[in-house]
Amino acid sequence: AEVKKIAVIAGDGIGPEVVAEAEKVLNKTEELFGYKFETEHGLFGGIAIDEKGTPLPEETLQLCRNADAVLLGAVGGPKWDNNPKELRPETGLLGIRKELGLFSNIRPAVIFDCLMEASTIKPEVLKGTDLIVVRELTGGIYFGEKFRRDSANGQEAVDTCVYNVSEVERIVRQGFEIAQKRRKKLASVDKANVLETSRLWRETVNRIAPEYPDVELEHVLVDNCAMQLLRRPSSFDVIVTENMFGDILSDEAAMLTGSIGMLSSASLGEGSFGLYEPVHGSAPDIAGQGLANPIATILSVALMFRLTFGYEDAADSIERAVKQVLDAGHRTADIAADRTKALSTVQMGEKILQAM
Amino acid sequence: AEVKKIAVIAGDGIGPEVVAEAEKVLNKTEELFGYKFETEHGLFGGIAIDEKGTPLPEETLQLCRNADAVLLGAVGGPKWDNNPKELRPETGLLGIRKELGLFSNIRPAVIFDCLMEASTIKPEVLKGTDLIVVRELTGGIYFGEKFRRDSANGQEAVDTCVYNVSEVERIVRQGFEIAQKRRKKLASVDKANVLETSRLWRETVNRIAPEYPDVELEHVLVDNCAMQLLRRPSSFDVIVTENMFGDILSDEAAMLTGSIGMLSSASLGEGSFGLYEPVHGSAPDIAGQGLANPIATILSVALMFRLTFGYEDAADSIERAVKQVLDAGHRTADIAADRTKALSTVQMGEKILQAM
Ligand SMILES: CC(C)[C@H](C(=O)O)[C@@H](O)C(=O)O
Ligand SMILES: CC(C)[C@H](C(=O)O)[C@@H](O)C(=O)O
Repeated sequence: AEVKKIAVIAGDGIGPEVVAEAEKVLNKTEELFGYKFETEHGLFGGIAIDEKGTPLPEETLQLCRNADAVLLGAVGGPKWDNNPKELRPETGLLGIRKELGLFSNIRPAVIFDCLMEASTIKPEVLKGTDLIVVRELTGGIYFGEKFRRDSANGQEAVDTCVYNVSEVERIVRQGFEIAQKRRKKLASVDKANVLETSRLWRETVNRIAPEYPDVELEHVLVDNCAMQLLRRPSSFDVIVTENMFGDILSDEAAMLTGSIGMLSSASLGEGSFGLYEPVHGSAPDIAGQGLANPIATILSVALMFRLTFGYEDAADSIERAVKQVLDAGHRTADIAADRTKALSTVQMGEKILQAM
Repeated sequence: AEVKKIAVIAGDGIGPEVVAEAEKVLNKTEELFGYKFETEHGLFGGIAIDEKGTPLPEETLQLCRNADAVLLGAVGGPKWDNNPKELRPETGLLGIRKELGLFSNIRPAVIFDCLMEASTIKPEVLKGTDLIVVRELTGGIYFGEKFRRDSANGQEAVDTCVYNVSEVERIVRQGFEIAQKRRKKLASVDKANVLETSRLWRETVNRIAPEYPDVELEHVLVDNCAMQLLRRPSSFDVIVTENMFGDILSDEAAMLTGSIGMLSSASLGEGSFGLYEPVHGSAPDIAGQGLANPIATILSVALMFRLTFGYEDAADSIERAVKQVLDAGHRTADIAADRTKALSTVQMGEKILQAM
């Protein structure tokens, strides 16, 4: 098989621990399915600030550019929280998205039946919830001009939210296309009753919608969406929205599943290149103790196999293995009812490898 | 007693029905407590578009300016949804906020014990939830410059989010002051890791925090707040945030109570003037059928008594009456387990008047 290059960025906190288990899954996949991976590690986030004086060193960017896909652990931590902007891990995250052209963030929010109880939502409401938030990732208020200026009322800060038709169109098309492969329902979220960018967004959605006649389209205002996610989560299939709204709604959706330690995500650009990472953060409080749950990172590998490499067999194998291990009652501390019986990060990784 | 002038704006959909019950509560208060109210009605929203060709007629604005407080029903409906911007009910809503200087929106999210089951959140998580969202209402991306321009990638839309120090300071002070009268906890919500306006916001909060040493302050990123509201709603006391984030989070908070037909809100400016309205919308689907729940509007009158007039006795009387009626098992259709036994709007109003 063709050798696939994977840039591995462990990052901060529990990042290195969970990524180590995901790398074992890559090795196991080579063994079982005959695929070939070449991994190379790069520094990113807090550790890159410490060792290289910048959250996104040029070598790391180059490493990613030369790779077919990127596997990312997690970045950030209190150590760097009060740094100036250029020396913060988030700045690296925004930088890597922009530099690699990762305009689309895919966040599946699925329920693991055996973890249903972990959600704060009633099981009868949650049942059957299986949605994907497709978030625009390189535009909007995140990347528009930002500045300070003087005003009659003291200093004034300005952020600019900008979207052009092409940017909206490519992310909305992705929403429609993902919906076509699923339950064929697309909720486009905006604030068209207030924002000009949202009006452009909605016009664009309506203009291209006729090209996807098999997809049922609904426009939902962002405030209403925040409510409907709570009221009828299982009625959503694919939600497509702009950067800032997507940041908020994808986290709300993740939390309502109760399985935040289990959710994976993909950030995609043009072509098949993608960056894959768990939804959870770097959890500095439990870092280095072998307590972290590696499942979200392992499932991010499965997502990489599906979306970037088209290795459906290997992706299925990983997802089935995770399900089997959970069904057998194995738990890491974050999802254990009885913490004294919890598996360590490495033990959980081991169980999944065995089940593959 | 001094005569208090109240501008009454019934609005669209169920607005007139619920406001009619609230006006009976005003009359009852005069009878029971000897206060004096003078009410005058104004056109606003969809009905004003139909009758006057604008959602916010100058007479209505004048009426509000001459009043001590405004009682608003609800505005909007599908009939006006595809109108051009100047002829949409929301434009009137934004206009009235700006014209009357209503910079602070107060949205209590409380749980009615007898309606706990109506929430999609588990009762053990919801228990004890009693929070207030204080939302900035006349700044930010709602009111910044908006325009279209051509770009190399098709038309481009721009929204501008602007905050100056004074705007931030006055709303944050209100947050601190409300917290001081409650459980003394303030969560300030921003996106300081991305937005310049949020960095100005956070600096301002930190600068004035020492003046409120009795209030425990926490900074929460907006995406995290959307999650924490689901995970630990009862841990919040007062949440203060900017306009757009407040729009989203206050709706999320309202929905998690399960009591959206019961929640009132206040929009305040300098001094004691305020506009009071239910959180729910105009519900055009059930308008004119006597099915609407008048409780949120009646509780908005209680809020007006407390915040604008300082009529604590009358406010207590209303709130006690509502509680008593609910505890006795009386329900409108929206909150009834058995709809065949539901009271009409007028019947529910009647029960509350009797209980006062
Ligand atoms: C860390 C932050 C800049 C980032 C974002 O807001 O995009 C994070 O919340 C995310 O969702 O990946
Ligand atoms: C109708 C709309 C303009 C308004 C807002 O976004 O402020 C509404 O959602 C609200 O919260 O009062």
